Amino acid sequence: MLPWSAELAGRIDEQVITSELLRANPLGDPCERPVWVYLPPGYDDEPARSYPSVYVIQGYTGHVAMWRNRSAYRQPFPETADAVFAGGQAPPAVVVYVDAWTAYGGSQFVDSPGTGRYHSYLCDEVVPWVDGRYRTVADAAHRAIMGKSSGGFGAMITPMLRPDLFGALATHAGDSLYEFCYVPEFGKCVRHLRDYDGDIWRWWADFRSRTSFTKEADMDLLMLLGVSACFSADPDGTVELPFDPRTGVLRPQVWQRWLDWDPVRMVPRYADQLRSLRAIWIDAGTRDEWFLDVGAEAFRAALREAGVPDEVIHFELFDASHMAIDYRYPLSLAWLCQRIAP
Amino acid sequence: MLPWSAELAGRIDEQVITSELLRANPLGDPCERPVWVYLPPGYDDEPARSYPSVYVIQGYTGHVAMWRNRSAYRQPFPETADAVFAGGQAPPAVVVYVDAWTAYGGSQFVDSPGTGRYHSYLCDEVVPWVDGRYRTVADAAHRAIMGKSSGGFGAMITPMLRPDLFGALATHAGDSLYEFCYVPEFGKCVRHLRDYDGDIWRWWADFRSRTSFTKEADMDLLMLLGVSACFSADPDGTVELPFDPRTGVLRPQVWQRWLDWDPVRMVPRYADQLRSLRAIWIDAGTRDEWFLDVGAEAFRAALREAGVPDEVIHFELFDASHMAIDYRYPLSLAWLCQRIAP
Amino acid sequence: MLPWSAELAGRIDEQVITSELLRANPLGDPCERPVWVYLPPGYDDEPARSYPSVYVIQGYTGHVAMWRNRSAYRQPFPETADAVFAGGQAPPAVVVYVDAWTAYGGSQFVDSPGTGRYHSYLCDEVVPWVDGRYRTVADAAHRAIMGKSSGGFGAMITPMLRPDLFGALATHAGDSLYEFCYVPEFGKCVRHLRDYDGDIWRWWADFRSRTSFTKEADMDLLMLLGVSACFSADPDGTVELPFDPRTGVLRPQVWQRWLDWDPVRMVPRYADQLRSLRAIWIDAGTRDEWFLDVGAEAFRAALREAGVPDEVIHFELFDASHMAIDYRYPLSLAWLCQRIAP
Amino acid sequence: MLPWSAELAGRIDEQVITSELLRANPLGDPCERPVWVYLPPGYDDEPARSYPSVYVIQGYTGHVAMWRNRSAYRQPFPETADAVFAGGQAPPAVVVYVDAWTAYGGSQFVDSPGTGRYHSYLCDEVVPWVDGRYRTVADAAHRAIMGKSSGGFGAMITPMLRPDLFGALATHAGDSLYEFCYVPEFGKCVRHLRDYDGDIWRWWADFRSRTSFTKEADMDLLMLLGVSACFSADPDGTVELPFDPRTGVLRPQVWQRWLDWDPVRMVPRYADQLRSLRAIWIDAGTRDEWFLDVGAEAFRAALREAGVPDEVIHFELFDASHMAIDYRYPLSLAWLCQRIAP
Repeated sequence: MLPWSAELAGRIDEQVITSELLRANPLGDPCERPVWVYLPPGYDDEPARSYPSVYVIQGYTGHVAMWRNRSAYRQPFPETADAVFAGGQAPPAVVVYVDAWTAYGGSQFVDSPGTGRYHSYLCDEVVPWVDGRYRTVADAAHRAIMGKSSGGFGAMITPMLRPDLFGALATHAGDSLYEFCYVPEFGKCVRHLRDYDGDIWRWWADFRSRTSFTKEADMDLLMLLGVSACFSADPDGTVELPFDPRTGVLRPQVWQRWLDWDPVRMVPRYADQLRSLRAIWIDAGTRDEWFLDVGAEAFRAALREAGVPDEVIHFELFDASHMAIDYRYPLSLAWLCQRIAP
Repeated sequence: MLPWSAELAGRIDEQVITSELLRANPLGDPCERPVWVYLPPGYDDEPARSYPSVYVIQGYTGHVAMWRNRSAYRQPFPETADAVFAGGQAPPAVVVYVDAWTAYGGSQFVDSPGTGRYHSYLCDEVVPWVDGRYRTVADAAHRAIMGKSSGGFGAMITPMLRPDLFGALATHAGDSLYEFCYVPEFGKCVRHLRDYDGDIWRWWADFRSRTSFTKEADMDLLMLLGVSACFSADPDGTVELPFDPRTGVLRPQVWQRWLDWDPVRMVPRYADQLRSLRAIWIDAGTRDEWFLDVGAEAFRAALREAGVPDEVIHFELFDASHMAIDYRYPLSLAWLCQRIAP
Repeated sequence: MLPWSAELAGRIDEQVITSELLRANPLGDPCERPVWVYLPPGYDDEPARSYPSVYVIQGYTGHVAMWRNRSAYRQPFPETADAVFAGGQAPPAVVVYVDAWTAYGGSQFVDSPGTGRYHSYLCDEVVPWVDGRYRTVADAAHRAIMGKSSGGFGAMITPMLRPDLFGALATHAGDSLYEFCYVPEFGKCVRHLRDYDGDIWRWWADFRSRTSFTKEADMDLLMLLGVSACFSADPDGTVELPFDPRTGVLRPQVWQRWLDWDPVRMVPRYADQLRSLRAIWIDAGTRDEWFLDVGAEAFRAALREAGVPDEVIHFELFDASHMAIDYRYPLSLAWLCQRIAP
Repeated sequence: MLPWSAELAGRIDEQVITSELLRANPLGDPCERPVWVYLPPGYDDEPARSYPSVYVIQGYTGHVAMWRNRSAYRQPFPETADAVFAGGQAPPAVVVYVDAWTAYGGSQFVDSPGTGRYHSYLCDEVVPWVDGRYRTVADAAHRAIMGKSSGGFGAMITPMLRPDLFGALATHAGDSLYEFCYVPEFGKCVRHLRDYDGDIWRWWADFRSRTSFTKEADMDLLMLLGVSACFSADPDGTVELPFDPRTGVLRPQVWQRWLDWDPVRMVPRYADQLRSLRAIWIDAGTRDEWFLDVGAEAFRAALREAGVPDEVIHFELFDASHMAIDYRYPLSLAWLCQRIAP
């Protein structure tokens, strides 16, 4: 009963995948990973029917169990997603909640010697695992991916890299235009690191030794360390920061590795792949703390430039910050499902 | 497995109480209320042993299912509380997670014709219900109450009103010194209400008709409405605001009803009751957005003035804001349990 | 030449008054006080003509030489005021820039054993001095007073106390509704004073010994000390703070002395005097950091309640904070002059 | 008398230079420019003595008459500078207050077809004019330049370009490391320009038509327009913005023109010139809103890398923001004068 709980019209299978690709990952994170598979109302009653699928990924520091978190006067996304189907706002779909947590708080959904092979895990393990166990329409035209923030980033890049798997995406305030979303953070990090003699590992040791997030530095430095591990680790796993931690001066080669992962800059390289998509939802808040509304504009403009037709794009800026924007997820979910339904 | 879940050394009984006192409450909220009863490690193995009990209440907009919410690099309080006992930091206790949610987001743990009889529900229904079903030491000397923010307020006032039930308390950033924590909010509310022609019910209708908390006004006006319903409802349930919504001018009689619930002002009236307590934990953050650190200082000073001996008080200000302060709950829990153990 | 300087159509007489009333003031501030008298265009050409007069007073920490301060793309008020007359937007007037600086940064334009007799200085020395040396229409109907912030406060109260002298006023974001504008400051001050063992004199000694305003505490504590000296000094000059500096608890008798100076609360006591005024301009910014927009609403409502007719009132809220609002001064000046012209 | 005024031990000659280089500047700004020349105590008494000289330039939106602005409990820099010499804290010097105001609020002290030849004006007109009229030691070893913010930028670059003229400098929170100080501003500007259809000229027309700085956009867009006019105007004066005003995407060629003016990036190109300097003061506040503390660190590191010896550098970070930092100017002035005295 609300507000404490809600009945779903569909149901969620909470499963665990034993990942071969994540075995022996550099951070020692579990290779047994939770996966939640939501089956829409009617799924059990129509055993011959196949469904499109939507993969849902999370923002930085998110892990799959947080989808259960409740807040006042709102329902968790698994419930509002269920309501989309229960209310007939979109054709039914299987919704897959993927976990890509790491000891650094996230994986950016890429393969990295600094964190692990989370991109491959998602594409080569989770997707076949789902298709093998549930009645999905197992092709890109009927498979979408969506997420917020780092999850929006993952939703932008995964179909670029694997258009054979994903034919649609939704990015809510997804990381993009890295000068705007990352460089100001670097400035803050230089300041925070003054207390640690410019050595992020000293901060990490401190962070691990006490209550987390009691210092203003914690979130900023965690993201710096984690995203560096994702984007700019050496083959042996050594994490390279994209700037000199004492002066803030960008290290061009390392920073370029980050820029190579900027969705706005990736678009021209992946123009063919992007033109193959049938649905792209882009949104952000006009007051996003990381300027991801500006990034969203830039991503849309790059798509246009790359020849992606306007008809497949939904673009919207909301009067919002980066926080508490889960109310937009059912909107994009319905929109995607209308477009990937068989 | 962390971060997704954790095993408890003890166990939690998730129960439901059918409240007679909340039946037909004015807001139409459920009278079937969830209650979680935590039983410490060893409870099932020592059937003859009785335990002290600690009642845990929540801040505004909190309900019991939120204790399950997970956040990065931290564990929910039910897990950190369990660790207190599993690690031997305090003698074992039964911990009772009480729910006092209302349609307005809270009850302030008082009886009010505007919301319902939540104080009586807690004292006259939950406590006997727990004592009747679990092996508690059923007296005030071995029963404590703790909470944060509005829950800290509840933890301060409940033992004043019912020293026969509660002999110890912990308040984390509990509401107090109302000029400081409430009046600035009233100023913001006057501004917010300009968009609603000074009529909070127009805002309420708007709030209920759309996604919650997408307007800056929402949280401030919700608290105003809710706390007014708790502190200054007429006998017929009509909610009286403590100020003129167009000018901000305090309405002395209504405001006095609020002040009568200010813990700092209540202390002299309840000096005898407070002197009977054996443990009082008071904390707050030096950057608390509602000046509750100042309120904490004032509450402590009032206790001293009332003759409460320093030995029963733990007072501490942390370098913190009002948010994300759950790391302090296991500290007070352990401290309380050391003092209420039989 | 702009932006460096501008020619006036009128002229400013920079004078010095040797005040008897300020001689031996408790802070040892000068009794030789600057006064600037602006004479409008035409003043020297029409030796038989008499003019209405407008007295201009300043906000906290303001002194008369600051009227010369220039900022980018704007002109100082003495220039924009001149433009009102040069452009024929209002009948010409003599404008008197009064100085009430003290060692604590201001006087609130009241008589106080803590600072000096600044109210009497203004009313009993400056006004006669001006009327004796310049061709003013020397009666209340043709004399106005205006100011911002503390100067707005002074502009509200001076005609209440001396309706025989002032028949019109303009308050720009004037101090009022003291729970809203002052009490939150007290909360900040309690925090600041933790570094000074709760002793404002220790802060004052520190402040005087180093570069001013390099600590966040400085402005808040200066205003606290200064306004306390104005409103709640003992007859022997001892400054009483309106709250306990360690707990924030209001000291009722001292706080009542402040409230006795709250313009909103003064209105009923001075209803007759206020009804005698012919023009009252009230404005504030909707984002005023001290909620003086709420105070402005309350002051207007109190005037209405006291029987001041709407026709004599101009009330306006601007989309603005408390800062950089000098662009509104020529608006009120013109409006006042239209109403006090002979 | 303080606080209204102060007597100087030296004296200020307020002069006007008729500039040939600024005649017919593209913005139609005056070519008659104010220059203030401060002569230290003793100057008139020792007609045979020659003095080192320090040129003082201002931050964005500053013009020379603002040096007269007074604020509470502080004195204007011309007075605190005078006190340096009057108190014997440094050997006497001639201090030259240069004005480089433009219709866009500043010139960055460079030559630009978008604004005018302000660098040349300073170096080729003001310096010879001063040396021709006052008893200065007219060589680089005895001539310094100092400033704050944009003036700090000017103080960094002018000796790089003209080491034959300036042998010492002081930068207080000078613009540097442009990714950090400018790119976040571009993000804000994209947002502001949404109200102007992405067209900065529409904003400019609006800005000129109403009270300045009543919109949050004003300061950000003014700086964008002005600095673009300084750094990236075409030869015909057309102002090129360094990014697409709708998407924020940097325009590489235009942005490179800005980067070419980044002091941190200029250091290697001007290493020889910088090694010739005898005194370099660098400071900033650890909370600078434009990360100019990080820029200061980067500038210092670049100097070291370029072989500038530590002995000629004073580097200091203050607990301060970007604002109200004039208390540091007399410190650097004294330090410079000790090093450029003959």
